[in-house]
Amino acid sequence: MVDPIELNDALERLNAFLAGDDLDGAIEYLRALHPADSAELLSELEPEDQAAIIERLQAAELAEVFEQLDEEDMADVAQHLDVEMLADVLDEMEPDMAADLLGELEPEHAAEVLEQMEEPEDVASLMTYEPDTAGGIMTSAPPSLRRFWTVAEALRFLKLHYAEEEDFFYLYVLDRHARLIGLVNLKALILADPEQTIEEIMDRQVISVHASADQEEVAQLLQRYDLVSLPVVDDEERLVGVVTIDDVIDVIEEEATEDIYKLAQMSPDSELYSPVPQSVRNRLPWLVVNLGTAFLASSVVALFEGTIAQAAVLAAFMPIVAGQGGNAGTQTMTIIVRSLALKEIEPRDTFWALWHEGRVGIINGISVGIMVALIAWFWQGNPYLGLVIGIAMLGNLIVAALAGVTVPMVLKLLRVDPALASSIFVTTFTDVGGFFLFLGLATYFLRFLR
Amino acid sequence: MVDPIELNDALERLNAFLAGDDLDGAIEYLRALHPADSAELLSELEPEDQAAIIERLQAAELAEVFEQLDEEDMADVAQHLDVEMLADVLDEMEPDMAADLLGELEPEHAAEVLEQMEEPEDVASLMTYEPDTAGGIMTSAPPSLRRFWTVAEALRFLKLHYAEEEDFFYLYVLDRHARLIGLVNLKALILADPEQTIEEIMDRQVISVHASADQEEVAQLLQRYDLVSLPVVDDEERLVGVVTIDDVIDVIEEEATEDIYKLAQMSPDSELYSPVPQSVRNRLPWLVVNLGTAFLASSVVALFEGTIAQAAVLAAFMPIVAGQGGNAGTQTMTIIVRSLALKEIEPRDTFWALWHEGRVGIINGISVGIMVALIAWFWQGNPYLGLVIGIAMLGNLIVAALAGVTVPMVLKLLRVDPALASSIFVTTFTDVGGFFLFLGLATYFLRFLR
Repeated sequence: MVDPIELNDALERLNAFLAGDDLDGAIEYLRALHPADSAELLSELEPEDQAAIIERLQAAELAEVFEQLDEEDMADVAQHLDVEMLADVLDEMEPDMAADLLGELEPEHAAEVLEQMEEPEDVASLMTYEPDTAGGIMTSAPPSLRRFWTVAEALRFLKLHYAEEEDFFYLYVLDRHARLIGLVNLKALILADPEQTIEEIMDRQVISVHASADQEEVAQLLQRYDLVSLPVVDDEERLVGVVTIDDVIDVIEEEATEDIYKLAQMSPDSELYSPVPQSVRNRLPWLVVNLGTAFLASSVVALFEGTIAQAAVLAAFMPIVAGQGGNAGTQTMTIIVRSLALKEIEPRDTFWALWHEGRVGIINGISVGIMVALIAWFWQGNPYLGLVIGIAMLGNLIVAALAGVTVPMVLKLLRVDPALASSIFVTTFTDVGGFFLFLGLATYFLRFLR
Repeated sequence: MVDPIELNDALERLNAFLAGDDLDGAIEYLRALHPADSAELLSELEPEDQAAIIERLQAAELAEVFEQLDEEDMADVAQHLDVEMLADVLDEMEPDMAADLLGELEPEHAAEVLEQMEEPEDVASLMTYEPDTAGGIMTSAPPSLRRFWTVAEALRFLKLHYAEEEDFFYLYVLDRHARLIGLVNLKALILADPEQTIEEIMDRQVISVHASADQEEVAQLLQRYDLVSLPVVDDEERLVGVVTIDDVIDVIEEEATEDIYKLAQMSPDSELYSPVPQSVRNRLPWLVVNLGTAFLASSVVALFEGTIAQAAVLAAFMPIVAGQGGNAGTQTMTIIVRSLALKEIEPRDTFWALWHEGRVGIINGISVGIMVALIAWFWQGNPYLGLVIGIAMLGNLIVAALAGVTVPMVLKLLRVDPALASSIFVTTFTDVGGFFLFLGLATYFLRFLR
């Protein structure tokens, strides 16, 4: 077993072989590793070393390597192969991975490669589905059985036709129209009496999903019913493929990453290794939108220019009230947005959430308000300044709680993704609220503050 | 198949049975559903309705229901059962779920229930592991084979002893000291010749994990090697259990939620439905820490009180520079923190990241700087104000890029969780940087701004 820390050591060893021009040694070393590890190492090599090794590997070995890489690394490595070799490799790969790899190539290149494949049918049909749907992430269906077969017949059928296939965990039972009517898990097949019929051992309560279903829905179904794979059907309920759990894990991780990026006010498609112009496109529009709300808050401050001219110290305290409101609002908004995503709360729970978060806001507001009041008092030697900032802080933390709940709930009701747009509205409320409360109170108490 | 939307309808139907005092109808209705759905519905009912239904279910039915609930719902439902019945239910449950349920009860109550169980051994031994480790999330090991058995013998053994067990997908091969030496997947067993030995069909490259390994490491291994379960071993390499993929999905979702909460500056243990005092404890300390840095930024503003007193308009523009820096810094920091979590980047890539993010910061800084300069110029009719705010904006977006990369990388090197502490440091840099650059430049150009 190679563990994550040893991967760096392994890379060093591999590079040592390559530095000594020992290509045979390097290949032998890679072959001894788990395919997931050799693929990882291969993707970390310099392009020329990658090319040298890849030229020497068999199609079946390359297929194993490709299946372990993510889509972009696949495309990088694939560019070292000519059309015939790539077609051979794709023939050996799982159809869904082969379709993903072809999807990364230029359309003409992909068409050329498909034409050279021995068995292009499965891959070509998988390529017709939208990427983020059940059809887009599924692979070809595992062996299917008929309900009137005996267990012995089913086993004979599997030995005859499926010895070379990838691992599978469930078998599906189809009727004469290829419609899905049941599921047999391998354990049931192993433990059954050879004379029993498939109908007797199959589970009729089979959960399936339509090929056009969103990948997020697929992930939720697999989680809800604790499945390791989910059959995908077409409009006529015919089995067209199966989504396996490893793809679903990728979906769950991808969706979490997207939510994190949206909450940080950037495009959900952001990627660390994007070219600079792409990174700018993923971020600049969000900064510009924020600029609009910043000027809104700024115009509130401008209303009180006369007050600030008379007590410039207010300018130093003003961002504290707005900033703490922003922090508290972000806390509330984040827990609401995440709980909406995990389906732990719905818009109809808004009143409960307002009551809960409102109380948290009041308690935090009183606590932070007292602290900030005391600090301001002792720093500037003016109890009235403490009073003004303390009360403004309490008020703004209540604004933060209300906005933190209401904004994502309203967005959800309007069918706008709450993760996408909540931050900007919540901080607008807390900026405007903070400046208005603090400078408004300060204007009222101005003669004590000068 | 019941889909997520229909669940609300199903709840209404169930409540209609209960409103008409038709308990038999309600139970019949629940029995016809998938256990995951009937468990979900049951957990949504009022406690008295729950109790009435639970009293009428068999231990085996209740076990199925419990296995579908999350830990807190399990404990809620379990309170309706007496010790004997609960013990019967636990005997029917998967050992890991039974251990989780017992872990939710008061220790004395759990001990009483354990004493009443027929087969408490597996559950009791699972309860000895730390919750967030491989041992804590594993369940009892599936059937294990010996390498010198024939396939026919193995099948006979499974039929004799494991007909009643939960589904399993892999079988493990142990040596005479119960050490893990290989893995057989069910497909290989089905397709093998009955006279072959287990040794001939087993896979020796079996990935395993120590019982004390962190659950995040377990999740990474299952993902990296595309496994549906991972064997867990003790100090002597003996098989003690197995972690299944459904538990790993929960871990992945939990870790993402924790990172989201940490980035939003609140306790990773935050929960929507925590009692108010707990919510306050999860958030107030973070607000207080932020208060410290807010006063630091505020003291920078205080340095320039003389400037602001002469040109109060600066107070209105000052938060825009700091705020945009905070937004841009959060974008960079978030992509670095998430990429560190997904192991797409390491601290040794810091220079690459600084170069990439620095260029993004300069381009965004020039763009936003020009926009803000023009708005300020036309709003206040003063080109110098535009010049000052534009240059300060560019400068602060560069500060944001540098801090957004450096802070999480340094925290990672110091073995502090970057998600936990990056936000506070990055916004400190952008607040201090923004105020200093803007007010400093404004002081220099003061005679043009009055």
